[in-house]
Amino acid sequence: MSDFANLPVRDDLRGRSPYGAPQLDVPVRLNTNENPHGPSPALVARIATDVAAAATALNRYPDRDAIGLRSDLADYLSSTTGVPLDYHQVWVANGSNEVLQQILQTFGGPGRRALGFGPSYSMQELISRGTGTEFVERPRRADFTIDLPDALRDMGAMEPDVVFICSPNNPTGTAVDTRVIVDIYDAVVSTGRGIVVVDEAYAEFSNRPSAIELLADRPRLLVTRTMSKAFAFAGARVGYVAADAAVVDALQLVRLPYHLSAITQAAARAALAHVDELLGSVDAVKEQRDRLALEIVALGAAVIDSDANFILFGGFPPPYGSDQERVWKALLEHGVLVRDVGLPGWLRVTAGTEDEVTAFLAALATVLGAATEESG
Amino acid sequence: MSDFANLPVRDDLRGRSPYGAPQLDVPVRLNTNENPHGPSPALVARIATDVAAAATALNRYPDRDAIGLRSDLADYLSSTTGVPLDYHQVWVANGSNEVLQQILQTFGGPGRRALGFGPSYSMQELISRGTGTEFVERPRRADFTIDLPDALRDMGAMEPDVVFICSPNNPTGTAVDTRVIVDIYDAVVSTGRGIVVVDEAYAEFSNRPSAIELLADRPRLLVTRTMSKAFAFAGARVGYVAADAAVVDALQLVRLPYHLSAITQAAARAALAHVDELLGSVDAVKEQRDRLALEIVALGAAVIDSDANFILFGGFPPPYGSDQERVWKALLEHGVLVRDVGLPGWLRVTAGTEDEVTAFLAALATVLGAATEESG
Repeated sequence: MSDFANLPVRDDLRGRSPYGAPQLDVPVRLNTNENPHGPSPALVARIATDVAAAATALNRYPDRDAIGLRSDLADYLSSTTGVPLDYHQVWVANGSNEVLQQILQTFGGPGRRALGFGPSYSMQELISRGTGTEFVERPRRADFTIDLPDALRDMGAMEPDVVFICSPNNPTGTAVDTRVIVDIYDAVVSTGRGIVVVDEAYAEFSNRPSAIELLADRPRLLVTRTMSKAFAFAGARVGYVAADAAVVDALQLVRLPYHLSAITQAAARAALAHVDELLGSVDAVKEQRDRLALEIVALGAAVIDSDANFILFGGFPPPYGSDQERVWKALLEHGVLVRDVGLPGWLRVTAGTEDEVTAFLAALATVLGAATEESG
Repeated sequence: MSDFANLPVRDDLRGRSPYGAPQLDVPVRLNTNENPHGPSPALVARIATDVAAAATALNRYPDRDAIGLRSDLADYLSSTTGVPLDYHQVWVANGSNEVLQQILQTFGGPGRRALGFGPSYSMQELISRGTGTEFVERPRRADFTIDLPDALRDMGAMEPDVVFICSPNNPTGTAVDTRVIVDIYDAVVSTGRGIVVVDEAYAEFSNRPSAIELLADRPRLLVTRTMSKAFAFAGARVGYVAADAAVVDALQLVRLPYHLSAITQAAARAALAHVDELLGSVDAVKEQRDRLALEIVALGAAVIDSDANFILFGGFPPPYGSDQERVWKALLEHGVLVRDVGLPGWLRVTAGTEDEVTAFLAALATVLGAATEESG
């Protein structure tokens, strides 16, 4: 048997580890921004019925173009944003990661450059690398907003082929102003080469207008979404993108044929038929998010304004300071798993159920209180 | 709104069309090598039950490593080949196309070269291109077997990073001798850089030994499989690969996190629990394949020996000759859809149900008979 070191893997993969949050078996897991509210028995029954219907023809390939599901997604976007869309303007794949990969295979790739504003969703860089696209990360301001004058200079100097704007931004929760998106779009398009991808994975938790509203006159704007978060459908792996129909046509040049199973298509359509129930959990999640923000501050730490279903918190008292890894470990010892995104001095916690948030806050109080005692 | 021509897509995508067989609504569709035998009511019920169980937790991400499904697939391979395997030696993704894409992202990519023996599965070239890998196609002999001395020279001269051997080969049905695989493997490994991928999508329809039996001492041999064909599970999109555990580790560096949905994992495990039923259709399919071979020859055309669930046929009488497109159209006019794979003088027909094969043979008799009359 060989070992890894002797395999002819690509040089740029050597020494790397697979992406993914540690999956630890602890009582309170608030590390992957999942929605804590599972589907109702009625929705589970509907999924079972619809999947069973699809299963009778599983010997046949699925609808390669997933037109029914794309139509349902277009209807959902139209009804929530007021922007008329149909399936020609929507593409869907196995999670928004596969959508991002297809976007980079189409508009990025070898000899091309993607640009993001960090800290942001780390898969931007990983998928860029996986598709041979150069990835450049430009820093956000200290408050994690995008520095627009700086960004506009970058567009001129770097002429990126793909620009990522994550809004609300993961892992900071920061919403990006429409004005910033529009100005960056104009700057990118003025170079003649780029596209702009607004990643709205967490849009349903925000009160701000969606970039979907900007699509009409902007043929190089792509807005990605997911059913994983607000729809509480992470296990089903359904991500999608809204854009000009020509962009959707272009993505089909790189999609693997029959990429989306008949079962996934049936389950996602069942979920979209229960959209009111699923989105009903959004308010409960936002309530816990706002509670987290208030109570973390009350415990003497700092938080970043969040439009998503998580809170970035930091400003830890001594002896922690910027040693977020130590806080992460201390919370884990109290049975609470949060996410260390590698940002010095900051950790990310998902807005879970009321009980989960209570458990987290109690653990944090103990950890920070203990710290204060230690240092006092 | 923009049109496609104004979009900054990659230059190598311009002028291309999405891959995929024409999906036409005709009575007899024998163009995509589907298994004509759908799942039993018992299996459909099992899928519905297991998917419903998985659906109760769809708000959570799926098992990122799909260990249960990989274990079941390893057990299946072990029981059918006699080779002991466990999940460390099996990787699974959304169809064997995604498996091939991950293999090329890991071992191919920009500056690297893949080699295949054509005519073969056209996704080899498309996925190579999609991952920035140079693709070189070397021709098979006139009888569609691999010319071993020629192939061994190629390995030395071209030093490919990835070599594809499809066996049984799509679209010809040709099985590749174990000796040929072993000699090519030795030649590739002697260059110090390559891996060999044996695509066994159609293995269950063959009576020859599987390349799985060659894995033990060959750490750079990968054998890909699919549940689409023998398992009659094309709609569920489940492909997999058996290889050294180090190869499986390497593939996880490029896989998208949570690439395989909880629903797909549940449905595939349900199908594997009904493996005897599913593989029960294999004999019926082989019977129709052998019938196709005999009766096409009786109609005055030629066939290639097939170990798969389809037959490549040609040798058309005047006025068709090498104009397979004309035969394809004539069959379509009789309500039968076969596959024109772009091989002058040849068409591919899937072994469908007894009735479908009867309809195809009747149509072919009319088409060729009409041709003979016209020219006589």
